[in-house]
Amino acid sequence: MSILRLCDEVPVSVPLTATVAQAIEAMLQHGVGAAVIVDENNVVAGIFTERDVLRKVALTGKDPKIVEVREVMTTPVIMATQDTSDAEALEVMVREHHRHLPIVDDHARLLGLLSIRHLLQARIDDLTAQFAATRKS
Amino acid sequence: MSILRLCDEVPVSVPLTATVAQAIEAMLQHGVGAAVIVDENNVVAGIFTERDVLRKVALTGKDPKIVEVREVMTTPVIMATQDTSDAEALEVMVREHHRHLPIVDDHARLLGLLSIRHLLQARIDDLTAQFAATRKS
Repeated sequence: MSILRLCDEVPVSVPLTATVAQAIEAMLQHGVGAAVIVDENNVVAGIFTERDVLRKVALTGKDPKIVEVREVMTTPVIMATQDTSDAEALEVMVREHHRHLPIVDDHARLLGLLSIRHLLQARIDDLTAQFAATRKS
Repeated sequence: MSILRLCDEVPVSVPLTATVAQAIEAMLQHGVGAAVIVDENNVVAGIFTERDVLRKVALTGKDPKIVEVREVMTTPVIMATQDTSDAEALEVMVREHHRHLPIVDDHARLLGLLSIRHLLQARIDDLTAQFAATRKS
């Protein structure tokens, strides 16, 4: 099963030309901790997270309504494809201390955004099901 | 085993009189997404998270160096004690959409700060160990 099954139906993304304020508004509107930054072809250019707001915006005196998100996004981004396994994705996110991992097609176009929270929850569901099956057999 | 085993050794906390900037700096310094706000007796008064920065600071034009964290913290806080089980803690955090849960003593004094990430990881470790034991037996 593709790792896309664990992603929200539509990943939160904003264009490279969006302001920081627009990116934050999109995150708040959808209740998520990260927005993917995409170019005009939906190709992933970077990611902007709550951590970036703390590190690069909140204490700098920069005006979020003026600064473009491309100036403060995290780039390059580590990405995964539909062929990435749950275990590989988890290993990367733990190693790199990333809570989010964009899933892209062969042209780096955005398909979904995986959160470590959903990945860990899915692993628990898998293990619980396996464990229950073992006890029945 | 107490749920405190899953918490960082020292929870990140700042006094009620700290500024928003001081709270954010403490979070960045320790690489965490939340700081507990405590009074002079280390009693929990509120919590301040990355989400609060987005919702109540980043877009408001408030100066983090001037505004006190007590004005923008989340309060009241849902808390747990050392007697709370892992399962109860997880249920509360999922239901309330909280990523952090302060652990307190009988006088509401801060003992630790639990993150849902650590809780989910512990659950996976438990299930994996149980599953391995079943297969061996």
